[in-house]
Amino acid sequence: MKPINVGLLGIGTVGGGTFSVLSRNEAEITRRAGRPIRITKVADKNLELARQVTAGRAEVTDDAFALVADPDIDIVVELIGGYGVARELVMQAIANGKHVVTANKALLAVHGNEIFSAAHEKGVMVAFEAAVAGGIPIVKAVREGLTANRIQWIAGIINGTTNFILSEMRDKGLSFDVVLKEAQRLGYAEADPTFDIEGVDAAHKITILSALAFGIPMQFDKAHIEGISQLDPDDIKYAEQLGYRIKLLGITRRRQMNGKAGVELRVHPTLIPTRRLIANVEGAMNAVLVQGDAVGATLYYGKGAGAEPTASAVIADLVDVTRMHTADPEHRVPHLAFQPGAVEDTPILPLAEVETSYYLRLRVEDKPGVLADITRILADQEISIDAMIQREPEEGESQTDIIMLTHLTHEKNVDAAIAKIEALPVVKKQVIRLRMEELG
Amino acid sequence: MKPINVGLLGIGTVGGGTFSVLSRNEAEITRRAGRPIRITKVADKNLELARQVTAGRAEVTDDAFALVADPDIDIVVELIGGYGVARELVMQAIANGKHVVTANKALLAVHGNEIFSAAHEKGVMVAFEAAVAGGIPIVKAVREGLTANRIQWIAGIINGTTNFILSEMRDKGLSFDVVLKEAQRLGYAEADPTFDIEGVDAAHKITILSALAFGIPMQFDKAHIEGISQLDPDDIKYAEQLGYRIKLLGITRRRQMNGKAGVELRVHPTLIPTRRLIANVEGAMNAVLVQGDAVGATLYYGKGAGAEPTASAVIADLVDVTRMHTADPEHRVPHLAFQPGAVEDTPILPLAEVETSYYLRLRVEDKPGVLADITRILADQEISIDAMIQREPEEGESQTDIIMLTHLTHEKNVDAAIAKIEALPVVKKQVIRLRMEELG
Repeated sequence: MKPINVGLLGIGTVGGGTFSVLSRNEAEITRRAGRPIRITKVADKNLELARQVTAGRAEVTDDAFALVADPDIDIVVELIGGYGVARELVMQAIANGKHVVTANKALLAVHGNEIFSAAHEKGVMVAFEAAVAGGIPIVKAVREGLTANRIQWIAGIINGTTNFILSEMRDKGLSFDVVLKEAQRLGYAEADPTFDIEGVDAAHKITILSALAFGIPMQFDKAHIEGISQLDPDDIKYAEQLGYRIKLLGITRRRQMNGKAGVELRVHPTLIPTRRLIANVEGAMNAVLVQGDAVGATLYYGKGAGAEPTASAVIADLVDVTRMHTADPEHRVPHLAFQPGAVEDTPILPLAEVETSYYLRLRVEDKPGVLADITRILADQEISIDAMIQREPEEGESQTDIIMLTHLTHEKNVDAAIAKIEALPVVKKQVIRLRMEELG
Repeated sequence: MKPINVGLLGIGTVGGGTFSVLSRNEAEITRRAGRPIRITKVADKNLELARQVTAGRAEVTDDAFALVADPDIDIVVELIGGYGVARELVMQAIANGKHVVTANKALLAVHGNEIFSAAHEKGVMVAFEAAVAGGIPIVKAVREGLTANRIQWIAGIINGTTNFILSEMRDKGLSFDVVLKEAQRLGYAEADPTFDIEGVDAAHKITILSALAFGIPMQFDKAHIEGISQLDPDDIKYAEQLGYRIKLLGITRRRQMNGKAGVELRVHPTLIPTRRLIANVEGAMNAVLVQGDAVGATLYYGKGAGAEPTASAVIADLVDVTRMHTADPEHRVPHLAFQPGAVEDTPILPLAEVETSYYLRLRVEDKPGVLADITRILADQEISIDAMIQREPEEGESQTDIIMLTHLTHEKNVDAAIAKIEALPVVKKQVIRLRMEELG
């Protein structure tokens, strides 16, 4: 059968992986797709690298705009990344009637609504399995595997760099800065690690999952984003003593607020009970936990990055697109299972309205009455305490740490309580506040 | 849009769950399927139960053969179970041009080749997500999510009853018989638990996964099946001391043997390193680990049984079938990604050719030279020892236990070694042999 022609934008790590997996497993992939999938053209600024990787098996160019206009190309794979030229190329490809496969989470989280709407108008597909959690087929699971369910929430370890750093900090009791340097040396963190360590990358991904799960548009600008660069190893240790492990989670949850539907969308270091499977996901691995009303909790685990794991997702999309290429657009799986009218019905809730439990650490003077003052403030904000430890002050030390776990409450109540607690003269430092999720 | 009409065979636990989830989440399911999915007819011998569950919203009959012949029905959902009348009804439904959705692993593992070949001829779909690991979308993951990969092996905890029993045996140090009774009381095990505890149910499921992963026909009759009813709590305890946990795994692996391809297909209690995520799957939960050459290991975890988790998978299939109903059969995802000619190329290997590591427990007289005799026999069979513990004999005891972990070897070598070891006069009991898998 006639091959389907793929044009590849960007022959870096993932592009190279895609090229080599596609050729290594050609027979099996052809059988699964129903016809051969051929990368016939590659565009990259580094022509020499492109020639080296393709070794004469694909045409090579440095003109990406010519590639997306090439009438022989059926599917464009965008592996450039970022919002700049990648956005222009994807929009051009769609305008030219090409299907698009992309691993670009930043692009989709920020410009996804515009892209999907253009694709819908042109009747082409935009597939993006590789944009979330690398090789784990989580987009397919949420969009096709759990279609029976009203999704209630999704919580995911969706950034390998930060999970590696947190694993190392816990394992070796090291500080964030020391472990970050190690991660950079090992290639788990980039030279400028900001997007990863400040939670931006995870926020891109949870924004996409939120849109998929709840049929709402991408609303990256409404996400609450907190990274791990300020995390103190002491809090990791105290959490452990209380039976919790700290992970950087992307969380999105459907909730009622004053009788109306809303969606929480947030990324922050989170205490999770150690007995949960997801709490035991270590190193650079990713895992996503999805709670549906019929199926209960399901978990998906695997490599979230790397050349071949990401290529695995890109090629799965190529096979899907190849299969559906000839099908009537209305019978294809919709990009986001988008529900018209859902925008007004289901807004992203402001952080102040988030409902969860909290870990609070207070540095206080070690003298009578301190605890009474603090618990009175919490009670006034209707925050009830689930567990508490007070560190024994060392010989000659006049200050100590109090760690409290709260029951479910609202962020705004905790904000108010913390402001009052920090105003107490016996409280010596900013209160450390981390959020907790039972996830079960 | 015109609804698609579904006829339901069997309104027991899963049938009732399917009916209620479909009506509870009607709006979201309709949106995802592109058109409404309606159960218009239900066949069950228990007419009263059927009337009660459907409450006037579907026609009720006790004539299942009339249902599968009804020209108004587009999809038949088979939830009767077993190989008997279920097989006849499925074959009839296919002959009448209906698509079929089934949760019946026994039927597919034993008669799947016949059923898929009939479906292929009639151009209808047979979907079976619910047949393996309940609500976990593992069939979709293997068949569509990992299409880029050459699957190397699959190992799964795919029977909740036995996993519950093993968790309890380990947790509480109880014997198999005691825990089985508790499982029966709690509804985790049936009155006649044979299919579950002897590994037959897990073997049905791993047979299906093996066919999916390797594009080979169903070959249930070639599976090696060993259950957990003979498992001694002592071995669970010794395994723990060595850093392993015992799980009933279904395992299928592609391997070279004398330069030719072959497939291992087996179910048995298996030692897994405790640090692996899958070793920490407790209670009645299921988890499947899939190793692909590009993606590496991915894991899928969730509820493997129960009314609504299973209904979740049945309905996901209904949505898929509804979407693909109008598509040209050759563009649909093939039932098994079956590769013509693969039968001769890739046989199921006999157990003697299985390659793995072993846990051996020997009851021996506590006297000099015993260990030398045993290690000599192992060395003669080219079996090398990875770790060993010898239990300290208690006061006045003349016998003790030796536990050995071997490196990779072949089952036939271990058979030969055990025969010779058991012939030694100092060896007082049958040698306990369990298989180990590193899974990483």
